[in-house]
Amino acid sequence: MLGRTYDNEVCSIARSLEIVGERWSLLIIRNALFAGVTRFGDFQKRLGVATNVLTTRLDGFVEAGIMSRNSGSGGVEYHLTDKGRDLRGVLIAFTDWGDRWQAPAGRPIIYRHDDCSGEVHSSIRCDVCGGKPDAVTASKGPGMPEEKWSHRTD
Amino acid sequence: MLGRTYDNEVCSIARSLEIVGERWSLLIIRNALFAGVTRFGDFQKRLGVATNVLTTRLDGFVEAGIMSRNSGSGGVEYHLTDKGRDLRGVLIAFTDWGDRWQAPAGRPIIYRHDDCSGEVHSSIRCDVCGGKPDAVTASKGPGMPEEKWSHRTD
Repeated sequence: MLGRTYDNEVCSIARSLEIVGERWSLLIIRNALFAGVTRFGDFQKRLGVATNVLTTRLDGFVEAGIMSRNSGSGGVEYHLTDKGRDLRGVLIAFTDWGDRWQAPAGRPIIYRHDDCSGEVHSSIRCDVCGGKPDAVTASKGPGMPEEKWSHRTD
Repeated sequence: MLGRTYDNEVCSIARSLEIVGERWSLLIIRNALFAGVTRFGDFQKRLGVATNVLTTRLDGFVEAGIMSRNSGSGGVEYHLTDKGRDLRGVLIAFTDWGDRWQAPAGRPIIYRHDDCSGEVHSSIRCDVCGGKPDAVTASKGPGMPEEKWSHRTD
């Protein structure tokens, strides 16, 4: 676990941010996922991130089970685990939002499905009606302690 | 704009993180979006975030067009704009990932579609074949300068 900033929060968003919410985290994962970067020096060169920060992030990813550290033929390599690769939904959701609101010169990157070259986007959907819901409400799940939930409405 | 940490990056993920990638940002937006919080004191009480940090975040959100600051009957209120509300896809993507990988006691929160009470989840989909793609490749979009793109493969 990288940070314990949100220790008081019983929330999957907060728990996710404890692992990937630090500065540079999601861009390191982006480079691993979509540019195939595996080596410390390549992450460093492409991102221009300070080496001490990069070391802390990669160590934290290994500790959190996002990446594995292996000795390859040319030295140490970092590879995303299934848990790490599963973050692509978050990355593509960020991309879509940034493309809609922060890309005045057009979309820098387009994600394409390898099988058919179609564009890949993130969306929210309702499991029951299949629609893209306008109105969504957060309700208590089984992992929420009663006292935390009632505190929400204090 | 909150930070200029990723100034060198032509990337919608990086641009999104410049606006909502700072500590507490997404949890403030979560509380606005799903708990209907609008007042400084309520954000502060629920999150336990330091007042100077909260001030910086809310000012930054207003500057970036994520929130508007209005004078209501009981004082200053912060309301998400369309751009801010559009972050719910990112928040739900984070929730789904955290639920899958960081929720040993079960999901704390379940998002439901107001119209039919169905569960709401985030997913990526291919625009052409409609499938949930396993293999996705990042390709150059119109907003990516040629020299930046070729640098990627140096």
